[in-house]
Amino acid sequence: MPGPLDLYAVVPAGGSGTRLWPLSRANHPKFFQPLTGTRRSLLQATFDRLTPLVGAGHVYVVTGTAHAAGVGRQLPDVPENNILVEPSPRDSCAAIALAAAVIERRRPGAIMGSFAADHLIKDEPVFRRTITEATEGAADGVLMTVGITPTRAETGYGYVECTEQVRPSTIQPVLKFREKPPYELAVEFVESGKYLWNASTFVWRTDVFLARLAEYRPDIAEPIQRIAAAWDGPDAEQVLADVWPTVPRIAVEYAVMEPAAAEGKVATIPGDFGWSDIGDFETVAETLGSPRQGAMVADITDTADPKVVTFESDGLIVVPGGDRLVATLGVRDLIVVDTEDAVLICARDRAQDIKELTSLVREQAGESYV
Amino acid sequence: MPGPLDLYAVVPAGGSGTRLWPLSRANHPKFFQPLTGTRRSLLQATFDRLTPLVGAGHVYVVTGTAHAAGVGRQLPDVPENNILVEPSPRDSCAAIALAAAVIERRRPGAIMGSFAADHLIKDEPVFRRTITEATEGAADGVLMTVGITPTRAETGYGYVECTEQVRPSTIQPVLKFREKPPYELAVEFVESGKYLWNASTFVWRTDVFLARLAEYRPDIAEPIQRIAAAWDGPDAEQVLADVWPTVPRIAVEYAVMEPAAAEGKVATIPGDFGWSDIGDFETVAETLGSPRQGAMVADITDTADPKVVTFESDGLIVVPGGDRLVATLGVRDLIVVDTEDAVLICARDRAQDIKELTSLVREQAGESYV
Repeated sequence: MPGPLDLYAVVPAGGSGTRLWPLSRANHPKFFQPLTGTRRSLLQATFDRLTPLVGAGHVYVVTGTAHAAGVGRQLPDVPENNILVEPSPRDSCAAIALAAAVIERRRPGAIMGSFAADHLIKDEPVFRRTITEATEGAADGVLMTVGITPTRAETGYGYVECTEQVRPSTIQPVLKFREKPPYELAVEFVESGKYLWNASTFVWRTDVFLARLAEYRPDIAEPIQRIAAAWDGPDAEQVLADVWPTVPRIAVEYAVMEPAAAEGKVATIPGDFGWSDIGDFETVAETLGSPRQGAMVADITDTADPKVVTFESDGLIVVPGGDRLVATLGVRDLIVVDTEDAVLICARDRAQDIKELTSLVREQAGESYV
Repeated sequence: MPGPLDLYAVVPAGGSGTRLWPLSRANHPKFFQPLTGTRRSLLQATFDRLTPLVGAGHVYVVTGTAHAAGVGRQLPDVPENNILVEPSPRDSCAAIALAAAVIERRRPGAIMGSFAADHLIKDEPVFRRTITEATEGAADGVLMTVGITPTRAETGYGYVECTEQVRPSTIQPVLKFREKPPYELAVEFVESGKYLWNASTFVWRTDVFLARLAEYRPDIAEPIQRIAAAWDGPDAEQVLADVWPTVPRIAVEYAVMEPAAAEGKVATIPGDFGWSDIGDFETVAETLGSPRQGAMVADITDTADPKVVTFESDGLIVVPGGDRLVATLGVRDLIVVDTEDAVLICARDRAQDIKELTSLVREQAGESYV
């Protein structure tokens, strides 16, 4: 069933979500997890959100070898030859360019959007309206980005700088992509009203994007085009195996969006659709938690009744991983994450160091735990 | 094989060890747990400690209906008719009196010792020597208690007060049994040198004990004697079922030892054999823990390599319950106990409230967890 828009939705499904360890693992990454408040995974929720816009046959997923089978199983309605499997991770520019080049060969001048596999969106009608508006800008030959209206001076995200105050439902030129800012700068950004969070949501014509890529990064465009030319033929695997490892690793923001913005070729539209990147346990608790005696309990398995008993405890985030009981006594400001084979007890103000912990875990307990 | 002493060793195996929840459960109590540093349970270690003294055929266990089969399995060398099963718990006086009365009918004038099922003893040669000395006192018709030389002003134990300074290997009259004292009093007790911890280790002639019981508590002695008279006959179960529920519930200290001490009929001998009651997680850590980065890890399952990874954590007690990884980050002074179906995270200074927590657990998560 094609959706109302003649749009192709590309979902790069990579990255493991280290800040959500031990929930998220290398072989069971964030996008496979039911961090949605239902039994659907983030990837499935992304698919569910896109199909009314584009139809299942227009959804593409770019993923790694480790997750290709899982993607196939979780999204049975995505056509097999829309699941593009990278032999090795080469960062977001390679992944997105591959999808753009394959789609361009199958449907020249198509419009494609790129959507993260592991974000959560509350207000889907507004999401659909925003993407529809972005599609109009893309049709005019602009590289569109959907920016999230910031709700706090977040230092963990990149920002998109507009030429003037952002207005709802209004396409505006993008001046610059700004890296994760220090706190003072983030405050300025948010107060100015001219900045949006970069959620890596892009909409463009594939021919326009590929032309920009060829201009700024011929070293990426050339091998990607060779791979795409072979993609639907008998030599696909061999060409991919030979050429893919030569593609430079770089994020699409650096490779294409920044130079294009400097040339006035990027525009944005604000997205006020209740976006969350479910990037750490604080966000998990905010987005999916239910308050209980001194704790936010994020019932990510959607079991009828997660078994959590807290006694004289306060400020806890508890993520029960199944049927086991989590009991606390006289503790405060902890994150407790229970999974089948590992339990994490972490001070809330140390959650940003979970990545460091996982290195220790790899060393001391073994690869299988990370 | 009879041991060197003509002594009967009675092991009352009751109580669940609530302060060790979730390790210890109603249906898997402390004495069944391998809290010994080996794969043997506390009950098995108790048996192992007693058989060189008395021989397996002289070991008796008094236990409840819920644990009778488990005792039978854990102690295959104890004769079946030495395992006395109480239809319902009636406290320690009933349990010990039943064993005394059954043994007295089978072997009049026997000497019996009563030994807790869930204590740990480091120095077994000293233990055996002490019990041998106590047996000599018992043979003379005295109710003997083995007191533990106190190593700190513990407020969680009862004390035995002697008439004068306690001397090693010397039998001395007991003046009084003293309840769990407040801290100031415990300090006085320990400093005086005249007090020993009461570890509920008693040695006496069965006829002497039963005579004292008949004198002080005929309401207990009479039904117990009726049960014992029927024990080895065809009506045993019927008599037990009818009479047992009428036996008053009281600890043997109150029913017999205190009034006997007041009459000068109790003596003690100090036991300096590295005793521990493994009563809470602090003791578990002290007795069985190995130091690791910021934690004492008590490997109670005797797995080759318990998986515990701590990062910038301090003052932890970790009891890993099997094959799961326990990882901590930036936390301190916690007790973490992992078991198959429950995990406890408890502030170290709140461990005495675990019993209260288990009431909540029973209410909120269900009977099966406690």
